[in-house]
Amino acid sequence: MSDVVFYFDFTSPYGYLGAERIGVVFAGDAPRIAWRPILLGAILRETGARPLIEVPLKGAYARRDLERTARRFGIPFRFPATFPFKSVAAARAFYSVSEESPEQARDLALALYRAAFGEGRDIAHEGAVADVGADLGYDREAFLERLKAPHIKDRLRRETDDAMARGVFGSPFVTVNGEPFWGVDHLEEARTWLETGGW
Amino acid sequence: MSDVVFYFDFTSPYGYLGAERIGVVFAGDAPRIAWRPILLGAILRETGARPLIEVPLKGAYARRDLERTARRFGIPFRFPATFPFKSVAAARAFYSVSEESPEQARDLALALYRAAFGEGRDIAHEGAVADVGADLGYDREAFLERLKAPHIKDRLRRETDDAMARGVFGSPFVTVNGEPFWGVDHLEEARTWLETGGW
Repeated sequence: MSDVVFYFDFTSPYGYLGAERIGVVFAGDAPRIAWRPILLGAILRETGARPLIEVPLKGAYARRDLERTARRFGIPFRFPATFPFKSVAAARAFYSVSEESPEQARDLALALYRAAFGEGRDIAHEGAVADVGADLGYDREAFLERLKAPHIKDRLRRETDDAMARGVFGSPFVTVNGEPFWGVDHLEEARTWLETGGW
Repeated sequence: MSDVVFYFDFTSPYGYLGAERIGVVFAGDAPRIAWRPILLGAILRETGARPLIEVPLKGAYARRDLERTARRFGIPFRFPATFPFKSVAAARAFYSVSEESPEQARDLALALYRAAFGEGRDIAHEGAVADVGADLGYDREAFLERLKAPHIKDRLRRETDDAMARGVFGSPFVTVNGEPFWGVDHLEEARTWLETGGW
C-alpha cells in the first residue's frame, strides 16, 4: 500500500474537487498517491448519515460552498441532472483499468469526474461510463466487458470494506502513513503531514 | 449587525478552537467581529444530526482531528469529564456581560472555553460559570443574578432563532457580510472573503 491513499466516491462532488486539487496540492509527490474509489453508501448506512445535500440547512450550505470553492480554484462545476447517482459502474471501470496502469486509471477517474461535475453528464450507467472510456481511446466493447468481470466487482467490494476498516467515512478522504484527513479543506494539512512527518 | 459574525456553542470543541483562532486569523480586523453564542441543540434537532462525537467512525475521527489541530496551533485541549454538556448558563452569562461591554463578553467567552476545553472544568452549571466570572473579577452574586434575568433568557433564544434563520447549523460558523463559512478550517477563507469582497 502506498504511503498516501486518496479515497473518493464518484458521486461525491467534494470528491471531484478533491480529485482536481490533490495533484496541485501534492505537486511533485502526486505520483506516489494511490487513488481508491469506494462506495460510500454502505459506509453511510454505518454512520447513519443522510447524503449531505439532503440535510436541511447543511445541504443548502454545501451547494453554496461547492460552487464557491470551485470558483476560487477555477474548476468548472455543476450538478448532473440526476444526483446523487449510482457510482458502482464508474468505480468498477477504474479498477479494471488500474490492473494494467494506475496512471491511466487516474486519468480515467478525472475524465469521469469532469464528465459528471464539470459537464453535468450522466455517468451512472455502464454505457455512459464506457462512452467516457471511448473518449479516452479505449475500445468501447472491451471496456464494457472488463468492468463487468467478477474479480473487478470483488475488488471494489474489498476496497470499500478495507476503507471502512481504516476509518474512512467520507469523500474525499486522504491517509498519509495511516493518518486520516477528511475533506477537500484538509488536503494542504495532509501534504504538510507528509512533508514534516506529523506533529 | 456587524459585518463579521462569529457563532459558536460553548459545548462545541471546534467552537473552542475557533474562538482561539479567530483573533489570530483576523488579526487587526478582530475587533469588528460580533461574537454570538447560540444553543445548537435546537438546530441539530432541525437538521437531524447527532452530536458529532457520538457518530460511528466520524466521532473517532473528530477526536483525533481536534487533538491534532490543537497541537498544530499550540492550543491546550482536553475534554471535560461531562461531554457534551449544557451550555445555556455560559451563553446567558455572555449576553449579560455583553450588554455593557462586547469586549469583556469576548474575554469571558474565552475564559469559559479555556476552563472547559483547556482545563477540563465543568461549565455546565450556573455556579461553575459564576466561578469563572469571579476569576475575572466579577462579583459572584451579582453575576449569578444577572445571568438569570428574563430578558437575558429571551436574548439567547432570539439569537439562536436568528442564527438558524440565517442558515447557521454548526459551530464555529462565521458570516462575512452574510456569506456563510462553517468550521474552524474555513476561518482563513472567511478572512480572505472579507479582504477581497468575495469571488
